[in-house]
Amino acid sequence: MRILVLGGDGYLGWPTALHLSAAGHDVGVADNFARRGYDAELGATSLIPIAPLRRRVAAWREVTGRRIEVFEGDLTDPSFATTMVRAFAPKAIVHFAEQRSAPYSMIDQAHAVYTQTNNVIGTLNLLYAVAETDPDVHLVKLGSMGEYGTPNIDIEEGWLEVSHNGRTDRVLYPKRPGSFYHLSKVHDSHNIEFACRAWGLRATDLNQGIVYGQETGETARHPALATRFDYDAVFGTVLNRLVVQAACDHPLTVYGTGRQVRGMLDIRDTVECIRLAVEHPADRGEFRVFNQFTEEFSVIGLAEMIKALYHRPVEIAMVDNPRVEAAEHYYHAAHSSLLDLGLEPHLLSGTLLESLFAITERHCGNVDPSLFEPTVRWTPEPDPVGPRAPAALG
Amino acid sequence: MRILVLGGDGYLGWPTALHLSAAGHDVGVADNFARRGYDAELGATSLIPIAPLRRRVAAWREVTGRRIEVFEGDLTDPSFATTMVRAFAPKAIVHFAEQRSAPYSMIDQAHAVYTQTNNVIGTLNLLYAVAETDPDVHLVKLGSMGEYGTPNIDIEEGWLEVSHNGRTDRVLYPKRPGSFYHLSKVHDSHNIEFACRAWGLRATDLNQGIVYGQETGETARHPALATRFDYDAVFGTVLNRLVVQAACDHPLTVYGTGRQVRGMLDIRDTVECIRLAVEHPADRGEFRVFNQFTEEFSVIGLAEMIKALYHRPVEIAMVDNPRVEAAEHYYHAAHSSLLDLGLEPHLLSGTLLESLFAITERHCGNVDPSLFEPTVRWTPEPDPVGPRAPAALG
Repeated sequence: MRILVLGGDGYLGWPTALHLSAAGHDVGVADNFARRGYDAELGATSLIPIAPLRRRVAAWREVTGRRIEVFEGDLTDPSFATTMVRAFAPKAIVHFAEQRSAPYSMIDQAHAVYTQTNNVIGTLNLLYAVAETDPDVHLVKLGSMGEYGTPNIDIEEGWLEVSHNGRTDRVLYPKRPGSFYHLSKVHDSHNIEFACRAWGLRATDLNQGIVYGQETGETARHPALATRFDYDAVFGTVLNRLVVQAACDHPLTVYGTGRQVRGMLDIRDTVECIRLAVEHPADRGEFRVFNQFTEEFSVIGLAEMIKALYHRPVEIAMVDNPRVEAAEHYYHAAHSSLLDLGLEPHLLSGTLLESLFAITERHCGNVDPSLFEPTVRWTPEPDPVGPRAPAALG
Repeated sequence: MRILVLGGDGYLGWPTALHLSAAGHDVGVADNFARRGYDAELGATSLIPIAPLRRRVAAWREVTGRRIEVFEGDLTDPSFATTMVRAFAPKAIVHFAEQRSAPYSMIDQAHAVYTQTNNVIGTLNLLYAVAETDPDVHLVKLGSMGEYGTPNIDIEEGWLEVSHNGRTDRVLYPKRPGSFYHLSKVHDSHNIEFACRAWGLRATDLNQGIVYGQETGETARHPALATRFDYDAVFGTVLNRLVVQAACDHPLTVYGTGRQVRGMLDIRDTVECIRLAVEHPADRGEFRVFNQFTEEFSVIGLAEMIKALYHRPVEIAMVDNPRVEAAEHYYHAAHSSLLDLGLEPHLLSGTLLESLFAITERHCGNVDPSLFEPTVRWTPEPDPVGPRAPAALG
């Protein structure tokens, strides 16, 4: 199948492109390299060195003989979106091409506006590109479990059967997310559902949990195929960051009570979930939602697991929560659809953590400990007097 | 009370500014004149001639002695938003400053992107302006009943009590709107709810029905105080358009079956609802939603009412529905909150229709009948070959 992976140079987009190529699909990747630009802006880098996209693609060809076509451009440019879809003629589009950090979106007004514009308008342009080029294309869109927030009822997969005043309906699951980033994905989901309903497009919205891990079967085949591994407080996902803190002798920073519960999954399951979604497309007109995670953990539970497992002493530092989120909450979320399609989860294990420790220890010399600090606070300071200075990051 | 009315040069923003000024409030209005620009783009004009904003404000001063301060600028410019809020120091902001036509948002990709960018980013900038200047300001935001779509359960005022698997929660009412315009307002509502929850702002989201009518007690006081009256298929609200068609000897164009049911209200109730919302502010941290309409009508019911009442023969033309919307559907929506605050509705009456006929008949010479045609179709035509020509409007 011809598959376009948008955001194919990123943490998950790149391993997904390789996984789909290894499965025999004809893969194209698109990227505007915004993610590498955020590194420059934040003074951060991937802990594991990553090759430029052209080198990555060449290495994949050397290792496997398989070609990956590259499109460089930005989805907020509508002519790029339409020209690319027309030129590549995909049967499926996997859409990772969004700013994906909640703290980044909360830095200040400009970052909130950038995140919502980039994500919502990029996706809107993509919907038009599909509708005007080939409405049969299956859009596989990366959403987030964070879109749901922490409701006091069970979280279902995108839709909810509601009875009210003696009548019933199947409604979109009501969402109350906790950042302008997560809100951008809620906006996307509403726009995509409309395009399925009004235009007969087909889409799968993958509400993904927090991903951990660094290697997949494909990225391990050559150093130039490695994907990025972030540990900073803005882009580092929680388990990856805690592992780096342990392995590099830094206290594990746990926000608030640490009793926030979140759905999580192994990077090897991310790429497999996407293969399963692509190979089992939604119907025309269907807006299908899968919750893409395999286990639920509390943040303090993860920190304690690492502390128990690591071979050196580990300190846990409880820090003020820079986010606005519930300290204690009910959390139970459905996630059976991808299991029904055949997903065999890699549950979090000591073996995986040991391998992450080993990978990390080799690169501790590259760690900048100041990047662990959660400097982005969720609430702006009122300043009735003068123009606000640009928010500082560090 | 010091009140800023954003979009204060528009169909409803202007009469609202006058109504609040007449009630003794200190009013400022802001506008970027985008609405007058759409006229130029679409080759349309208000059936009733309207004065420039500066002339309007001067006429109000002549008639009442009351001043209205004017801010010219665009909310998508964050420094305009912040500077204005800091300079005027309002206690309440009434936010009409959005592109408000569903067909306009569906013209093509560019108009969809414009609508969502203008509305969502403008409102996001406004949230930051309030949070950074004075988080105590009460934001009164114009939403739309169209945000809800046509669910098979009763529509409540913004929130819904849900029981699911033995647990309960109060959730945001799930929405499935029918255009990129209505979607932009759903996105706004989610962003505003987050700002109330995370930042402790106070907001009232007014999900307004379809407004009809042209005069209020204030606009009738001088010809230069008249508000616009649109009859074209893009910006003309349904009852106003049908009245103009009847009074100017054109068949009443009813889309589809005409059995779409919508909540509606008189323009005099719009301005009064906003006064009531402003004078009874939401609490800090509260995201309050009112459904702002007074009666439900089907489109065919309105057409038949006009036909029965008008003194000359009236033809009703059933035309293909250019929109994607349910032809037959359940519709029952709560709207008690504004009544509880003291609203005394002007229910649709023969007297109101007679007065609209009389106003309209005086201006039939200015009508361009081609503007009645619903040329904007909801579904783009797939064109796999070449770059798409700009969508034509006429």
